[in-house]
Amino acid sequence: MKENIKVRIEKLRKKMKEEGVTTYLIVSDDFHGSEYVCDYFKCREYLSGFTGSAGTMVVTEKEAKLWTDGRYFLQANEQLKGSGITLMKMGEKGVLTVQEYLENVLQNGESLGYDGRTIGVNYANSIKAALREKEIEYKEDIDLVGAIWRKRPKIPNEPIWLLKKKYAGKSRKQKLKLLRDELRRIGADATLIVSLDDIAWLYNLRGDDMKYSPVALSYTIVYQEKAVLYRDEESIRKQIVKEFEKDKIEIAPYSQVYEDIEKLQGITLLIDEKTVNVSLRSKIPADVHVINQMNPTTLAKAKKNETEMKNERHAHLLDGVAVTKLIYWLKKRYRAGKIDKVTELEVCKKLESLRKLGEGYLQQSFAPIVATGAHGAIVHYEPTKATNVPLQENTFVLIDTGGQYLYGTTDITRTVALGELTREQKEHYTAVVRGHLKLAAAIFPYGCTGANLDCLARGPLWELGGDYKHGTGHGVGYLLNVHEGPTGIRLRESDGSAGAVLEEGMLVSNEPGFYQEGQYGIRVENLMLCQKRNKTEYGQFMRFEMLTMVPFEREAILPEMMSDKEILLLNWYHAVVYEKLERYMNAPEKKWLKSQTQSIEKKIINNYDNDIR
Amino acid sequence: MKENIKVRIEKLRKKMKEEGVTTYLIVSDDFHGSEYVCDYFKCREYLSGFTGSAGTMVVTEKEAKLWTDGRYFLQANEQLKGSGITLMKMGEKGVLTVQEYLENVLQNGESLGYDGRTIGVNYANSIKAALREKEIEYKEDIDLVGAIWRKRPKIPNEPIWLLKKKYAGKSRKQKLKLLRDELRRIGADATLIVSLDDIAWLYNLRGDDMKYSPVALSYTIVYQEKAVLYRDEESIRKQIVKEFEKDKIEIAPYSQVYEDIEKLQGITLLIDEKTVNVSLRSKIPADVHVINQMNPTTLAKAKKNETEMKNERHAHLLDGVAVTKLIYWLKKRYRAGKIDKVTELEVCKKLESLRKLGEGYLQQSFAPIVATGAHGAIVHYEPTKATNVPLQENTFVLIDTGGQYLYGTTDITRTVALGELTREQKEHYTAVVRGHLKLAAAIFPYGCTGANLDCLARGPLWELGGDYKHGTGHGVGYLLNVHEGPTGIRLRESDGSAGAVLEEGMLVSNEPGFYQEGQYGIRVENLMLCQKRNKTEYGQFMRFEMLTMVPFEREAILPEMMSDKEILLLNWYHAVVYEKLERYMNAPEKKWLKSQTQSIEKKIINNYDNDIR
Repeated sequence: MKENIKVRIEKLRKKMKEEGVTTYLIVSDDFHGSEYVCDYFKCREYLSGFTGSAGTMVVTEKEAKLWTDGRYFLQANEQLKGSGITLMKMGEKGVLTVQEYLENVLQNGESLGYDGRTIGVNYANSIKAALREKEIEYKEDIDLVGAIWRKRPKIPNEPIWLLKKKYAGKSRKQKLKLLRDELRRIGADATLIVSLDDIAWLYNLRGDDMKYSPVALSYTIVYQEKAVLYRDEESIRKQIVKEFEKDKIEIAPYSQVYEDIEKLQGITLLIDEKTVNVSLRSKIPADVHVINQMNPTTLAKAKKNETEMKNERHAHLLDGVAVTKLIYWLKKRYRAGKIDKVTELEVCKKLESLRKLGEGYLQQSFAPIVATGAHGAIVHYEPTKATNVPLQENTFVLIDTGGQYLYGTTDITRTVALGELTREQKEHYTAVVRGHLKLAAAIFPYGCTGANLDCLARGPLWELGGDYKHGTGHGVGYLLNVHEGPTGIRLRESDGSAGAVLEEGMLVSNEPGFYQEGQYGIRVENLMLCQKRNKTEYGQFMRFEMLTMVPFEREAILPEMMSDKEILLLNWYHAVVYEKLERYMNAPEKKWLKSQTQSIEKKIINNYDNDIR
Repeated sequence: MKENIKVRIEKLRKKMKEEGVTTYLIVSDDFHGSEYVCDYFKCREYLSGFTGSAGTMVVTEKEAKLWTDGRYFLQANEQLKGSGITLMKMGEKGVLTVQEYLENVLQNGESLGYDGRTIGVNYANSIKAALREKEIEYKEDIDLVGAIWRKRPKIPNEPIWLLKKKYAGKSRKQKLKLLRDELRRIGADATLIVSLDDIAWLYNLRGDDMKYSPVALSYTIVYQEKAVLYRDEESIRKQIVKEFEKDKIEIAPYSQVYEDIEKLQGITLLIDEKTVNVSLRSKIPADVHVINQMNPTTLAKAKKNETEMKNERHAHLLDGVAVTKLIYWLKKRYRAGKIDKVTELEVCKKLESLRKLGEGYLQQSFAPIVATGAHGAIVHYEPTKATNVPLQENTFVLIDTGGQYLYGTTDITRTVALGELTREQKEHYTAVVRGHLKLAAAIFPYGCTGANLDCLARGPLWELGGDYKHGTGHGVGYLLNVHEGPTGIRLRESDGSAGAVLEEGMLVSNEPGFYQEGQYGIRVENLMLCQKRNKTEYGQFMRFEMLTMVPFEREAILPEMMSDKEILLLNWYHAVVYEKLERYMNAPEKKWLKSQTQSIEKKIINNYDNDIR
């Protein structure tokens, strides 16, 4: 295998020479900036042998380097051994960034090549900015890994299907009208959309090209009088073509967008340079006036309509039944002394079988995380055959999973105690739940962003000197991407999503956590819908509606750490969970659920409050 | 008077004609972007008769318009009657901004004039951006109001004085070294500083040119080898000149900076365009490379050193004694049935007499706000002879005042109950105090900004559908401006100050409020020092140290609205207040203070917590 890698890199170098390219850049993206990519796009993996989802590679005549982030240092180190590729640990002191390295390695008169379809405009601009003092030739339209890749997987072209209005809430026609009205308001004649979830949302179409996200590889250009969907027609049933014709949506081959964009003349075109790739961008003729801003579909998609909200409630009920039954099953196995016979991967399998019983369940919404003990402290741990272990006793198992239903997308984390916990474990769990509840109960005027509210979720951990090195929340799509913009609950507005105003209908996660390295991980995640509350002279007040319906880990909660209000909130949530799930449980499950959701009383005077200074 | 105004405007129009200016702009600023300005700079007031602190005027051949904000609508309306000047209510629907109006009124080939010394670079840029489509001639160096203003007050030039190291903590020499090190790091050869508090801080000088802020009208240019202070020498004692000479600080006439800046050659100059006026900016020669960023003095000044922190604690003790004695005096007058004999202005006078007893007290740090009943709901109410009324019974009096001591600057608000309060008044007071305490008790990792924490102070009001239309906190100087950058506690990072990281030693206010129009106003304000707490693997944690030492209004607090932790915090604060102030009180004051600060018990089950949804 390692020899293979060396051979591949040498073949690439030969191609580079033929094309007159001194330095070649390979990223991990597809043509659409997607979070998950199909095998066809895994050039960096093919060339390096490193299978992590995030990584960037630069190959010169003499060197080959691979950048990845902290999640993957161990794995990359292992997989790159003997390949001759140097691992560049992103974020570590003294490690050059890709841009800095390119600035160092490229000399005047040399050339940098890449497949511009896989590189976002903003990323390309950051590279060009770093190299602005040098005379560098850019070759943006060469796929040299593709040229050496034998037996490359095909670009998938699975049949697409349409989402009925009872699921989508709004018709294609309504959505196109909304988009066109916005384009007129902005002063644009047309828009090019590249992000797959925006296209799927706009046309109420779904696909099976890739894992986890039911989107279809495609582009679209929407004009006032017509729209063109770029997708090879063999995957589109005649009936669907007819449906599209009714709404004046033409079908054109997937790659034809690169030719059509060159033919535009003198119009004003809206694009979102955060998602458009640099190859498309550079093909826009000079006489086309470009407006670069977030596409109107992105906000419209994020604000779930009444039907989507109703459906998401149903999806979360179905999902709650599956996850609650899984927890019961784990507890039963533990009580039977058989927990060491259950592996992480078996938990995934069991949960999948329970979810499949739910009406309209289609697939997982992301790679499931089931992490026992110390595995839980690795924030992005995913069990594989290589890492899979049986569940440990007297610690937590962290279960972060989600489903795609016709009724919407779910994403839930529960941290389950198996056996006796230490006082410290309970303190950390209680702090995480307190933060979760504080954010869930927030009432705030319209106009607040995630950066304004994030401290509510972190506050209880901060008091203990703890924190978590990830965001508190992300937007979630409707039967689309489990990570969806533009909203997020993060501390820094500069992190993009944290600067977006929380709007009615936005579906966001609430997932504080705590990670004790080498020991255990805790995370508690519900999805919430942002809703209007009362309106006063101070504005429209907003609140969150908790959608996820699964009890928290009662055994890990220390009531004496909680305020009266937090206990009331917890008891109220548990009462709702019981009321909603009860009818789906069999007798022993129901009995267990009753005890798991019964009211918690505060019995001990709050010792934690004495730590005022 | 109104006839005068018309005559003045006509005289201005004549001057405009002579100078070939079709439109003339008059703002309220001095040459330094100061919050308070000397009488010399009150051109807009002279020309309009409007005495409010904020306003912008535009005069054309036919029209005269004055823009001001919501605080001043009533006052401006009254004062502009019969003047022929149109009031432009900023922020109201359909009201053009200054920029929009200029865009409408100015035609190709016309000219816009203003005194560029009174206009900030950013403001001038916003005007030029609005007019970029037109060919407009800018006359930036004409003071036409000055040309018609008979008996204009002189530019003050009061004797300056030096702040000893035992007050300032660091010598001029140390501060200059720190600044020069930073300039080198940034790559600048020199810096031009225009903001008066930065200059006063850098040279440990203070002045008496203007009310409230003990700064001295001046500019400075700091080079690596020397520095020049632009200030007319007659106000500087020989002894001080000698002191300055030791640190290679030359003295040059105040206005000479405009000539000297033109003589700079080929250097890199650091300026902060937020404070530099456009007249100075435009005189910087083209071969000078300009770096525009916050001047290093601004952050250094905001982070109080150990001596300044120690001194501020002392200033706040002295100030707390004065304000606490005032509250006792008010309560005594009320009990004696004589509160209707005490007017708002008498309260100001009484407080001033009490503050004067404090060691090192110099003057008020801003115009005192003493507002009884409905006056309290006018956020920027200041009692004047015209508005002054006796204190009302059975309502609040809101007292927001501050002092300048050799030991630092104070700013405190207390809302005092005189007689019976309604349940609603108590609910609002309690919500304000809860927010105040939540923010005061915040523990957060280094890196957080005011925008991250603001929701803590507003949360309890938001739960009631309430809010306050001002920031939660501002930075405070050391014997300098009571409003000092770069920090602030506000919801929007875009409001400038809210984006600055809270650093050790920063002195910030914590002042949530609630305003019931036509009825009463509530505000509770303490100053806090940002301090380091513990350091963990998650970073350096920070906390606030409360400096202000004055009891809250016990009679207005509903313990049943508060959490256990909030009650503990309140009781802890009151215990500290009693411990610190006790020795300064006479027997009856002490007895009253004891009762005012005794522990509050929570007797009733918390009804408010039931409002979960």
